[in-house]
Amino acid sequence: MGMLEPRHAPHDRLAAYLSDDMERVNALIRERMASEHAPRIPEVTAHLVEAGGKRLRPMLTLAAARLCGYGGPYHIHLAATVEFIHTATLLHDDVVDESAQRRGRPTANLLWDNKSSVLVGDYLFSRSFQLMVETGSLRVLDILANASATIAEGEVLQLTAAQDLRTDESIYMQVIRGKTAALFSAATEVGGVIAGAPEEQVKALCAYGDALGIAFQIVDDLLDYGGASATIGKNVGDDFRERKLTMPVIKAVAAADAEERAFWTRTIEKGQQAEGDLEHAMALLQRHGALEATRSAALGWAETAKTALAHLPAGDLRDMLTDLADYVVARVA
Amino acid sequence: MGMLEPRHAPHDRLAAYLSDDMERVNALIRERMASEHAPRIPEVTAHLVEAGGKRLRPMLTLAAARLCGYGGPYHIHLAATVEFIHTATLLHDDVVDESAQRRGRPTANLLWDNKSSVLVGDYLFSRSFQLMVETGSLRVLDILANASATIAEGEVLQLTAAQDLRTDESIYMQVIRGKTAALFSAATEVGGVIAGAPEEQVKALCAYGDALGIAFQIVDDLLDYGGASATIGKNVGDDFRERKLTMPVIKAVAAADAEERAFWTRTIEKGQQAEGDLEHAMALLQRHGALEATRSAALGWAETAKTALAHLPAGDLRDMLTDLADYVVARVA
Repeated sequence: MGMLEPRHAPHDRLAAYLSDDMERVNALIRERMASEHAPRIPEVTAHLVEAGGKRLRPMLTLAAARLCGYGGPYHIHLAATVEFIHTATLLHDDVVDESAQRRGRPTANLLWDNKSSVLVGDYLFSRSFQLMVETGSLRVLDILANASATIAEGEVLQLTAAQDLRTDESIYMQVIRGKTAALFSAATEVGGVIAGAPEEQVKALCAYGDALGIAFQIVDDLLDYGGASATIGKNVGDDFRERKLTMPVIKAVAAADAEERAFWTRTIEKGQQAEGDLEHAMALLQRHGALEATRSAALGWAETAKTALAHLPAGDLRDMLTDLADYVVARVA
Repeated sequence: MGMLEPRHAPHDRLAAYLSDDMERVNALIRERMASEHAPRIPEVTAHLVEAGGKRLRPMLTLAAARLCGYGGPYHIHLAATVEFIHTATLLHDDVVDESAQRRGRPTANLLWDNKSSVLVGDYLFSRSFQLMVETGSLRVLDILANASATIAEGEVLQLTAAQDLRTDESIYMQVIRGKTAALFSAATEVGGVIAGAPEEQVKALCAYGDALGIAFQIVDDLLDYGGASATIGKNVGDDFRERKLTMPVIKAVAAADAEERAFWTRTIEKGQQAEGDLEHAMALLQRHGALEATRSAALGWAETAKTALAHLPAGDLRDMLTDLADYVVARVA
């Protein structure tokens, strides 16, 4: 388990390397999260922002800017921007996901949370917008505007593509680009742009973030079925129960015979699930090699990410980004 | 009723005057509303955007730009931006308001609508963001970023300020600036900025939009109690039933004796409303002159709006904007 030991993880090495920058990002986040007029806002955001998730996205922005030799102040603003957009997206996802989980029987409390989630999410979007305007870079604004549109389209697409067996891998790719990769690639790209990096490097950073985000999301979707070994543990099968079509099932559906197709239609499209259905679904995924093929896809995207880095300056930071790509898929490697 | 006759209304004269521009705005809205990837989006937005409300906000942007002699193409983008932000806000308000109305007993259908409302609202925000970036004006982006933050703060503030008798007129002003005036003033200000108008004119446009928006919202809140004559008709009393503290009630609470205070505490704070309470509330509003004072406040803001126009070039357009300020308060004048 050596390479997965938390203190050796590439993520933590990056965090240590960028700790001064990261402290400034955290200070800026705390400052801009506050609202003079609406004290409820920090109440709602505090547990999300302060809890200090892995801060992977802002770290990508900082790493990209530093890798391209940036010496100015605005990578801090952009890192905070990216974290605010991410947090806003999580808040709005809550509304969408919670209502699915408790379909038809939400509580008053759930509704109050919904309101706060929608409005505080909007507030964080607007704060992120102010932060990026402060950088004075129209190109950065263009990248983040396009990323926002891709994120929003991906979310709507997921709403309609879930529970529909016609959802194929190309639709799945659009969904996960919106859900994950668009913000990853914007995070790395704006780091290069603010640093005034040559076009080739900016493109490479964009490609790296895109591939890293895709690998990250495919791994997540694979682990929801217990990884390539299909082991049933806790948190396994959530996507199946929520009838979300992800890569493993899409691959199994594509290879299904008539009887199997009827199974997927009943469980995913009609949502009529019974005891033992998850086990049967996982047996089908194994039978068609869907989990193994999904694992290969994730590893392929991690390779794509590493290849893109070839265009960037060699050194510690690039090595850490290379390791990060391996790390993202290590859970299923 | 002459001056309120629809075809003579200043709004319609403005619409006729700006009809070529407005056609281009509508074409741009239709084009940018569409999504290659997520066909559900136009389904949700169509009835909102196509139904063609009064388009008051985009018209303000067009009028401001033209009044300042603008001859370029970007007032069209900004007018569409403003309409998209308005529509997105309406979609998110739906989530907040619908859940309040059917407290505790939403339907699955309501929840599906909630999801679409949240995500399609986000999509329209992101599209508006792309449109404004296309103008290439950082100052325009700054104004709209600040307006977005004010809107979001106002919405959250309203969530906490409603049903709380400590809400005073200064909090109410913050709420309605967020709810209405921030977008009105951004709409007029960006029109002047894109036209490269002198600073004095830009400030005047901003002040006009702000005062017009405040007058507009106060009138709306007054009409919810039947206007200054307190006539109970259809749609009267919604704010009372939803326990929203607006200017008339805030004024009546400020003047309340102990017994009246107990009435407001029971009906607004505790939400224990019975038959006859609305009638009693309206009697209290009359007793303290709260409706008349609210009416005066609205008329005062309309005057402020007209006064601001003094700094702008005289002519047909300015006259129409003057008339528009009168028109906004004409329903209670």
